[in-house]
Amino acid sequence: MSRFLAACRREPVDRPPVWIMRQAGRYLPEYREVRARAGSFLALCRTPPLAAEVTLQPIRRFGFDAAIIFSDILLPLAPMGVEFQFPDEGGPRLGRPLARPQDWERLAAPADGGGTAFVAEAIARVLPQLPQGVALIGFCGAPWTLASYLLEGRGSSDHGAARAALVAHPEEFRRLLATLADAMAAYLRQQVAMGVHAVQVFDSWALALPAETYADFVIPALERLLHGLDGTGVARIVYASGAHIVPLLADLPCEAVSVDWRIGLAAAAEALPDKAVQGNLDPTTLLASPEVVRTATHEMLQAAPARGFIANLGHGILPTTPLEAVSAFVDTVRGAP
Amino acid sequence: MSRFLAACRREPVDRPPVWIMRQAGRYLPEYREVRARAGSFLALCRTPPLAAEVTLQPIRRFGFDAAIIFSDILLPLAPMGVEFQFPDEGGPRLGRPLARPQDWERLAAPADGGGTAFVAEAIARVLPQLPQGVALIGFCGAPWTLASYLLEGRGSSDHGAARAALVAHPEEFRRLLATLADAMAAYLRQQVAMGVHAVQVFDSWALALPAETYADFVIPALERLLHGLDGTGVARIVYASGAHIVPLLADLPCEAVSVDWRIGLAAAAEALPDKAVQGNLDPTTLLASPEVVRTATHEMLQAAPARGFIANLGHGILPTTPLEAVSAFVDTVRGAP
Repeated sequence: MSRFLAACRREPVDRPPVWIMRQAGRYLPEYREVRARAGSFLALCRTPPLAAEVTLQPIRRFGFDAAIIFSDILLPLAPMGVEFQFPDEGGPRLGRPLARPQDWERLAAPADGGGTAFVAEAIARVLPQLPQGVALIGFCGAPWTLASYLLEGRGSSDHGAARAALVAHPEEFRRLLATLADAMAAYLRQQVAMGVHAVQVFDSWALALPAETYADFVIPALERLLHGLDGTGVARIVYASGAHIVPLLADLPCEAVSVDWRIGLAAAAEALPDKAVQGNLDPTTLLASPEVVRTATHEMLQAAPARGFIANLGHGILPTTPLEAVSAFVDTVRGAP
Repeated sequence: MSRFLAACRREPVDRPPVWIMRQAGRYLPEYREVRARAGSFLALCRTPPLAAEVTLQPIRRFGFDAAIIFSDILLPLAPMGVEFQFPDEGGPRLGRPLARPQDWERLAAPADGGGTAFVAEAIARVLPQLPQGVALIGFCGAPWTLASYLLEGRGSSDHGAARAALVAHPEEFRRLLATLADAMAAYLRQQVAMGVHAVQVFDSWALALPAETYADFVIPALERLLHGLDGTGVARIVYASGAHIVPLLADLPCEAVSVDWRIGLAAAAEALPDKAVQGNLDPTTLLASPEVVRTATHEMLQAAPARGFIANLGHGILPTTPLEAVSAFVDTVRGAP
């Protein structure tokens, strides 16, 4: 079993496995070259040979222990009838936000998992090119984070429209989360069928919600999604932002929890006694000198649990990150016991 | 002593005092009328008769237990040499972000507290018009939140530039926070001299930082600022976002802590045994029906500590909030034991 999967299952490893969220991304010159060739971000995602190529680039350069298939959490919403654009500057925009409950009711996933075959093909292309012992991770957005995108129409600093809709229409909102959970479970099963070794569910905007609301509305939807992978044998990781959210994830049917920089790794491990923990260096740390990165990475490793730990950042790597900082991070983890 | 000040000092009250962050704001038709007359947000802040008028409007309409002087956290930065605009849409923008440590070193507050006399004059105009028993609150931004504005040049969803600068230049960043703490202490002393009964320090972006960084960098700056008010007898409230930040505030030299909706009031009170607690209904709740608001407010009151509680929202009221929702919130608090 790969070092990465062993850590997910809290089995002993020679050293912590390491990968970086958004490791296939703009901080890499070779990524920018392929991205320019593709013409647009969406074209890059939807052209399997190019998506496979950028998935593999960071593995070649840094020797990460896991690759994550290149895609975006919004793509599986397209076959559900959601239109969006990825402008070159700023985040993605929905053609029309789904503001009202009657808009949500119309969302439906195609039963055959259609509309995302390009992801399946990219996975098929990556697998034979992966070095021995490197795991491939599939992923999707979590129901709450996707719901916020659908309601806000774009990234939001406070997710006010989504939070307001949840309060105003709680039962319809629960159904929306369940619909998204079912659609994402089907999307992940498609990725598992193609051979990914692990999946990560990104609840990037968990942070916006109070703990009680998260426990009441979001946890059941996450359970529904994760149970959709029961019996597949795939390792399941849940990423959720917000220190107050972490303890709520302790009983989820997943093997690992990926935490942001707001919580210490020791506190996270204590709150999640049955899970592996992934994280959590603040990505802005990688904007500092290699020496600062090494010190901060050492501190992170010292707080990490001895078993069931996957080194990563607390959020996606920033596009302006220098390559030396990534090397300093990875090399420091590799030197760890 | 007013009901509000008694609650700040954790003395018995007949019912919880109530006010709302940004209660003088765009959700009020009478505010929009004065704002239009002023021509711009900055002109409104800097014209004492108008600033006094909008400070008093929500007291007249809703009978809040406290008024907060109408201003903005960026205004006392102007006499320190910082230029900014308040466009009609979107948040404030700095003319030029202070990206480098040498830019921070040039920041200096005028020793005489000059450049903010309009706030002092607005306070002088409000006080004689306040109904009996209504407290007046002065305020300022907290050093970290102001530093983030200075470095980002605008509101930010992740405060990446400020976090990166803190990591890259820790000692210079500490000095920047200390400079801001001293300037804000002087600014608040000016407000206290004019007669405000309480002050609130807004660390709206505390949430962006890890607990360790907040404890290491921000808490000393907050202590420095708050100690600058020692001996004045004014009640000091610290607002900080982020459930993971709340326990770090337990030993600050302040009387009350204002918490956001991410933490429950019972958990906040437990983490802050010596403080009054203010908050914390999610402001998006006020976008729902009056019935939903009443239920949510009842739940909030049930979780609130019996002594030392000030009812408020967990963040500023949203401009689209209907007036009936505010009435439902205030009336429910007024009916509480």
